[in-house]
This record gives sequence, C-alpha cells and structure tokens, in this order.
Amino acid sequence: MDKERLDRLFDFFREADKEKLITRQTYITDCVRKETDAEHAWHAALMCVLLAGYSDTEIDVLKTVTMLLIHDIVEIDAGDTYAYDEDGKKTQRMREEKAADRLFGILPQEDGEYLRSLWEEFERRETPEAKFARVMDNIQPLMLNDYTGGRAWREHNVALSQVLRRNEITPDGSGKLWEYALENIIMPNAEKGNLV
Amino acid sequence: MDKERLDRLFDFFREADKEKLITRQTYITDCVRKETDAEHAWHAALMCVLLAGYSDTEIDVLKTVTMLLIHDIVEIDAGDTYAYDEDGKKTQRMREEKAADRLFGILPQEDGEYLRSLWEEFERRETPEAKFARVMDNIQPLMLNDYTGGRAWREHNVALSQVLRRNEITPDGSGKLWEYALENIIMPNAEKGNLV
Repeated sequence: MDKERLDRLFDFFREADKEKLITRQTYITDCVRKETDAEHAWHAALMCVLLAGYSDTEIDVLKTVTMLLIHDIVEIDAGDTYAYDEDGKKTQRMREEKAADRLFGILPQEDGEYLRSLWEEFERRETPEAKFARVMDNIQPLMLNDYTGGRAWREHNVALSQVLRRNEITPDGSGKLWEYALENIIMPNAEKGNLV
Repeated sequence: MDKERLDRLFDFFREADKEKLITRQTYITDCVRKETDAEHAWHAALMCVLLAGYSDTEIDVLKTVTMLLIHDIVEIDAGDTYAYDEDGKKTQRMREEKAADRLFGILPQEDGEYLRSLWEEFERRETPEAKFARVMDNIQPLMLNDYTGGRAWREHNVALSQVLRRNEITPDGSGKLWEYALENIIMPNAEKGNLV
C-alpha cells in the first residue's frame, strides 16, 4: 500500500496546513481581515488557469499552477515579507532557503526535489512559467488593493514608484496583462491618492 | 487589449474573493479557527498534484486541479453545507444551481461554460477526474480532523457510519488512498472515540 511514501506525503500536507496561519498585508473584499497565504495561492492559481492565454510565451499551465500553489510555502518558517518591506527583504532569501530545506525535505525524495526545483524556478524568474506565475503573484494583490480602496497601500504609505519597481518584471510575462493592470488598476489608484 | 473580456474575468476574480468569507466546519492545525473554502480548495489542489499517481484510472491532472480550485465557488451564494447536515443537504442542489448560474455567468461565455461544465462533472462523480477530485475533497478534511483530535467530529457528534457513508465513493477514485485513510485516519479515530 505504499504506507511509508504516503506517510511522508501526508506529513507534508499536514505541515502545509500552517500556510493558513500566515497572514499577508492584503485585505480581502470585506476589509474585515487580511488574506492568508493559502488563500492568496488559491486565488493566484485560479487566475492562472483562466488567464494563461495572456502569457507572452506558451506555458505549461499545470506546471505554472503547481508553482503558484507552493510559491509561498517557505513562509511557514520564514514568515511573509511584505513586498515593500525593504529591511525584511535583506534577510528574506536566507530565511527562505532554510525553510525550503526543511519543508521540501519532509516529502519523498523525488517529490521534494520536484517542488524545490519549481520554487527555485519561481524565484529565478527566468522561464516562461516563472514569469507568468510572477504576473499572477503581483496582479492578484493589485486587484485586491484596488477593490479595497487601496487600504493596505495607504496603511504602509506605498508609493507609485514602489509598485512600478515591484512590477518591472510583469510586462516580461504578459504585455497585455501589464497594460491592463497599469491602465485599470495602478494609475487610477495613483490618481485617487491611494498610492503616494 | 481585450479590455471587455479582461473586465469580465477580473469581475469574476473579485467575486471569487468572497470564497475567503465562507467558513467550513474543519479546524486548521492550531484549532484557533476553522478553515475557509478558499483554503480548503488550495489544500485539496496541492494534494491532488502530489497524489494524482494514486488515481485508479489515469487522470488529466490540470483538469482535476481546476475542478478542485472551483468546486466550492457556488458556496459564495449557497453557503457551506456541512457534510453531515442532513437537513441542509435537501435544499443544497437547488441553492447551488442558482449560485452557479450567477457566478459562472459573470465570466466570458466560453470560460463560464467550461467552469460550469467542470463543476457539473464534479457533482456527477462519474469521470475519473471527478472521482479523484472527490477523493481529495473527502480526504483533506479527514486528515485535518485527525490532526485536530477529531474536534469538529466531536462537536457535531459525527458517527463512524456517517463518515463511511460519505466516503462510499472514495474507493472508486483511489483504492489505495481509501485503504490508507481507513487504516490510518478513520479507524484510529473511531477507536479513540472521536467518532461515535
């Protein structure tokens, strides 16, 4: 029955459950609370399925969705580093590498190596799948910030220039989605003063 | 730039955000709160990617993952019907059909029809993908109930017979995962008295 292998997989699924305890800075639609990492990953994966046709290069959608499902799992140990927390970002890579060693190490070797390689690929932002996954990872919170009147941006005094820098890579994954986000989400919020 | 089409897709993504407001009966690992529908869908999709090889019949993994990402979206309007709420289940189909009309109707026609057909397929439990998605949908809360000392089961006085009835279809999707869940999750919890 493969008990040993299944035990390791279920150990990982149980550990992954802790991603529901990691809170991001983005508010959900009712503004009553911020979203969790697990909710963000679900939302980005769903968006990927429906937006994959907007990738500039053809992508392996299952690979990209899988990348999105696990892209923040290292935050179980390393915590969420806010996109505009410049101090936190200095130690982010070190904290996340250590977390990746532990978390992907729980899995059967082959599965652990596969997910680790997907996470590394996402981090390096070089392949079409990683570039498109980054577009989803960036556009999902832009959309929620827009929907909640820029509340998280205003609380953190986020500047338009920071959003543009964060999204420097977005046009690399999808010129069309970048154009859409710039015209319909980013610039209107800058005009409303939600971005300083 | 496809603005009209993208507007409809983003309207759907914004609406889908409300799945984070639907609370299920299953406690997350720290027992401080119950999980949301979005978190459950993320967890089940992640499990699907890693467990797909245990399906009795070969499955299209992307299709199954997509099915899992959207399988509970109708609960935005219809609410969560607890697996062991026999009264709620009487009106569930009617409430969910109406929700499906509204929610999938937000999307561009082709996308809406595709997701609607996946949801119907999941509900009918006939194809290998639907059967395996059901295995994930059932085993994910079994695992969390086990991990949290059967708290949700005890709060609702759930009986072993109810769990077995709910899981009648599980062996249809994966004999191996059913055997694993029965021996390692269900029966030990019945022995501990977490299931009456």
